[in-house]
Amino acid sequence: MTTPGQQPERTGSRSLDPHLRRYAARAGGMTASEVRALFAVASRPEVVSLAGGMPNLAALPLESLSEQVGRIIAEEGLTALQYGSAHGVPLLREQICEVMALEGISGHPDDLVVTVGSQMALDLVTRIFCDPGDIVLAEGPSYVGALGTFASYQAEVRHVVMDADGLVPEALRAALDAAKQAGRRVKFLYTIPNFNNPAGVTMAVARRAEVLDICAAHDVLVVEDNPYGLLGFDGQVYPALRSMDRDNVIYLGSFSKTFASGLRVGWALAPHAVREKLVLAAESAALCAPTLNQMVVSRYLATHDWKGQIKSFQTMYRERRDALISGLEQHMPAGCSWTNPDGGFFVWMTVPEGVDTKAMQPRAVTARVAYVPGTGFYADGFGSRQMRLSFCYPPPERISEGVRRLAGVLAQEIDLLNTFGPTTSRSLTGPQTPSPDTA
Amino acid sequence: MTTPGQQPERTGSRSLDPHLRRYAARAGGMTASEVRALFAVASRPEVVSLAGGMPNLAALPLESLSEQVGRIIAEEGLTALQYGSAHGVPLLREQICEVMALEGISGHPDDLVVTVGSQMALDLVTRIFCDPGDIVLAEGPSYVGALGTFASYQAEVRHVVMDADGLVPEALRAALDAAKQAGRRVKFLYTIPNFNNPAGVTMAVARRAEVLDICAAHDVLVVEDNPYGLLGFDGQVYPALRSMDRDNVIYLGSFSKTFASGLRVGWALAPHAVREKLVLAAESAALCAPTLNQMVVSRYLATHDWKGQIKSFQTMYRERRDALISGLEQHMPAGCSWTNPDGGFFVWMTVPEGVDTKAMQPRAVTARVAYVPGTGFYADGFGSRQMRLSFCYPPPERISEGVRRLAGVLAQEIDLLNTFGPTTSRSLTGPQTPSPDTA
Repeated sequence: MTTPGQQPERTGSRSLDPHLRRYAARAGGMTASEVRALFAVASRPEVVSLAGGMPNLAALPLESLSEQVGRIIAEEGLTALQYGSAHGVPLLREQICEVMALEGISGHPDDLVVTVGSQMALDLVTRIFCDPGDIVLAEGPSYVGALGTFASYQAEVRHVVMDADGLVPEALRAALDAAKQAGRRVKFLYTIPNFNNPAGVTMAVARRAEVLDICAAHDVLVVEDNPYGLLGFDGQVYPALRSMDRDNVIYLGSFSKTFASGLRVGWALAPHAVREKLVLAAESAALCAPTLNQMVVSRYLATHDWKGQIKSFQTMYRERRDALISGLEQHMPAGCSWTNPDGGFFVWMTVPEGVDTKAMQPRAVTARVAYVPGTGFYADGFGSRQMRLSFCYPPPERISEGVRRLAGVLAQEIDLLNTFGPTTSRSLTGPQTPSPDTA
Repeated sequence: MTTPGQQPERTGSRSLDPHLRRYAARAGGMTASEVRALFAVASRPEVVSLAGGMPNLAALPLESLSEQVGRIIAEEGLTALQYGSAHGVPLLREQICEVMALEGISGHPDDLVVTVGSQMALDLVTRIFCDPGDIVLAEGPSYVGALGTFASYQAEVRHVVMDADGLVPEALRAALDAAKQAGRRVKFLYTIPNFNNPAGVTMAVARRAEVLDICAAHDVLVVEDNPYGLLGFDGQVYPALRSMDRDNVIYLGSFSKTFASGLRVGWALAPHAVREKLVLAAESAALCAPTLNQMVVSRYLATHDWKGQIKSFQTMYRERRDALISGLEQHMPAGCSWTNPDGGFFVWMTVPEGVDTKAMQPRAVTARVAYVPGTGFYADGFGSRQMRLSFCYPPPERISEGVRRLAGVLAQEIDLLNTFGPTTSRSLTGPQTPSPDTA
């Protein structure tokens, strides 16, 4: 850690960071994610970014939203600008239950806590369940922000393999058995069953009951993270794990992808006793989620055709997915393979043996295209042959151009490899977990 | 923990909370605060609540705010409704530096992180510094929300006595020496130097350098929490501890009391290397503070006479303080004493020996007046003869009426005591730390 502009130190330490010896043990696990380090370069206008996970908000009805939000402040400003309860705005909690009903969930507004995005919900769940050294099972690959949260609570992640139908039940059973034999405590399975970030695959409906049964039999909670569930490109909606098991599943939801990420409104639906703990944890973390933001979402759900809005999001993202997939089919050199998502934001690509996606990244950015190398989505060093390609943000013609550029970089890389052999050593610090399309 | 409405359990446990054995050790420290438990009854309209700490927003220019917020969404909606960086909106960080300059702080926008209220800033600071069993020093009494955060990270709080001039330097030195002798690690001093919540006292300016020197000599950080600093009733502004020591102080600020609490916009200004850790911790906690809210505060600071607004807050709160103090002088029975704040929201009152403020509370609510018993502001069980009286929210005439009612309850209580002796046992679990007006 560097300290540009640091003043002369009062305490006389000679360390570059004079506070280094003061940090808690958990601070050691806090390192900048590869996704984050990339954002600065990837956001330059000449670069086609297939790296970010930002939703495309262009389709939002800004003018009518502007009027509604103005009215909230003019008419209910003394409530909207005041502290609220850590539990969340009651009307919004009722409305969220209606949203979840689309996925077959029958939940009570009282068993739900509104959070600052579902990221905070995940943080609070990890806070109340994970002691240092506890194991969390997660799909391999998994959401980079979740891996960061687990690390910040010193939980250890064990990845469970996926295939084109999502999490593989036998692999889950094996991971649980292995932990048991090693005398280690597994606190929960963290899963993104629908349109997985970053893998783009969906847990087959036929597998869901089996996954729940395995976890229940091993006395392990399931944390179901579902930000993309309503973004199926054919309007298809898969039944939530929570809809099949109300007592052993904590469901995390978000308006970041179906409405507006910058409002930071998410939630957790949890078994009642757990929800009570979550509210206490939320109080100590931030007192309450912003009242104004909760009222904006509530008003939006009450006055806008939010289901129609989600349909237009589906159409927009489907077009972008199509542009990405047809670009890949057209341009990618032999030996590359990828997932073909039917919803969400992401495609997961595997490149030929010998290509290191992290080492290649600077050359890709030079060629004005950005992606996220696969290693960021694993806690165990796997993923050097993988990358995440996002199709959520750039328009279709830019996506096509980006894929063309990326294919050029890859072809050159493979060419070099064939001529000189691999130049970078692959740094694997753990077992090689197969990625979805190689399992 | 009860489980009303709990469904039949899948896992077959017979515990009332089937997840009880699954929680992390830190979840044991998460219990509902006494302040929180009180809010339900205290918010009934017939009760004069001297309990809450909610700012009075009636003076805010809602109409013009409504228009500005509407324009942010109409003109910059794609930014306002989108994810931002965990560091915070750059323009707002610059403006916050101007706000802090009023207290003599020369800070760089890069060394500042915007958080979901200063509560989250405190949570992140505790997260990166406190291992279980570390000691945090805090004034006695101290902010109930801070005690909750420290408990949730399993840090142990040792209180340091205050007098009418705030934290007593000799007591601080003694507490640090005692910890050292016991081989315990003190991670930081948490202090609310201005218009302390709940004590209402201010750390004398002459003491500030001494407090900083003592902490530096013991190699202990100072966390300065200053939500009320600009609410001095005579427009007086005390120099921040951070203005005297930039390397060993983390400063926490908030717009909750000077603008709007429901937006949840606060910040931490920290030594550069610590700030970097705070941004990483903020990412894993909530990805980023809501962009819209940061832009609303930024626009407010840029377009409104925010200093004039703070002046009118000062005037409003001064009138309420006057109503409370003159009510106390007029009505309180002999043997009661209280602090006389020159800013902020709170008066700290000590009642005669034998009266238990927590035991008396239901009788006060029956008499339609609410306060917060003192024990909630101590981690060690002290405070049973104390209570916090807030003058921030009710109008002056209601405050006067509330004090009249409270005096009646107290007089009756003292009467009973004189006749029958104390009926409730005082539950002290730790050393009796003197409160500000008894030291």
